[in-house]
Amino acid sequence: MNYPNTLKNLIDSFKKLPGIGEKTAERLAFSMLNFKDEDIDVFSKSIKDVKEKIKKCNICSNLTEDDICLICSDNNRENDILCVVEDTKGLMLFEKIGFFKGKYHILDGLISPLNGINPEDLNIDRLLKRVEQEKIKEVIIAVKPTIEGETTALYILKILEGLEVVVSKLAHGVPIGADMEYLDPMTLEMAMFDRKKISE
Amino acid sequence: MNYPNTLKNLIDSFKKLPGIGEKTAERLAFSMLNFKDEDIDVFSKSIKDVKEKIKKCNICSNLTEDDICLICSDNNRENDILCVVEDTKGLMLFEKIGFFKGKYHILDGLISPLNGINPEDLNIDRLLKRVEQEKIKEVIIAVKPTIEGETTALYILKILEGLEVVVSKLAHGVPIGADMEYLDPMTLEMAMFDRKKISE
Repeated sequence: MNYPNTLKNLIDSFKKLPGIGEKTAERLAFSMLNFKDEDIDVFSKSIKDVKEKIKKCNICSNLTEDDICLICSDNNRENDILCVVEDTKGLMLFEKIGFFKGKYHILDGLISPLNGINPEDLNIDRLLKRVEQEKIKEVIIAVKPTIEGETTALYILKILEGLEVVVSKLAHGVPIGADMEYLDPMTLEMAMFDRKKISE
Repeated sequence: MNYPNTLKNLIDSFKKLPGIGEKTAERLAFSMLNFKDEDIDVFSKSIKDVKEKIKKCNICSNLTEDDICLICSDNNRENDILCVVEDTKGLMLFEKIGFFKGKYHILDGLISPLNGINPEDLNIDRLLKRVEQEKIKEVIIAVKPTIEGETTALYILKILEGLEVVVSKLAHGVPIGADMEYLDPMTLEMAMFDRKKISE
């Protein structure tokens, strides 16, 4: 295509984003021709800012502009309960729903020997230190229920052994509103195994 | 959500793009944290550049960084045939397929009295001048087959009346590969009316 160079550069940049193909990149780039000047400035600047200013929280590894993230520095949250998640997306999931009032610990991955990811590559050492120093009463492991997730959960359980802390993990079972016939056998088995008594 | 400000700004910027909602904006913004530094620079710069440097070609109104666009200044193209399109997207459609070797004229819209768009709001005057000055032999009207498109086509036909130029418009008919039963009656009627004899 005979696009002017600047337009071509912008299209190419959009194409580097996940899930954005040629056609969408063109549509997005064209739409920017109609952006207001101040929106252009903000967009252009925030792209650079995000890369330059966003770093990881020194405590929980959440994204932050300061040394300590907004959640870790929030004194209104419960200080003695930690929700352990794989990445920032996991944290966001819970924050969006908003019912969890404790703090987080981001592992920055899951143990996966096949992919060369060992416990020392993850943010697990600091979890141990936090449990001791911050007098954590409960660690809720909220990672995905895959082999990597289960391995990681077992590893965390092991290193926290002997400490005065309750370790729990998310319940498995039938999702609310789910069509039972499309559920995988493992989930159904778990749901049966963890069944809750509802009679007196 | 407790996003750091810079991240929030980037998400908000992405949300201003067409078809990008909250979730996609978040996904795109997060993905940029893993961009290479040089990609970040190019992206940030091209957003500003596109708004600052891209303007309309003095001849055909195509997008360009110079006074004259790449197509108008291409001496290898046929100089006496013009394809009249509504906007740059229309031009791109033909350029992508690549069979049209003439030049273009972009109207920057279609006549639509209901929306207050009259012929003088469009790039039609210049079309008349071009046909005269550039000794155009054929003007192909390639606008969409709506009331606005047909009105615009009729208007162009009228103002070119009396000049030594053939005015044509795209054929209507059954699209290749189309499922006949989903075609609208108007298209079928047109296809029947413009039927082509295939026997000797």
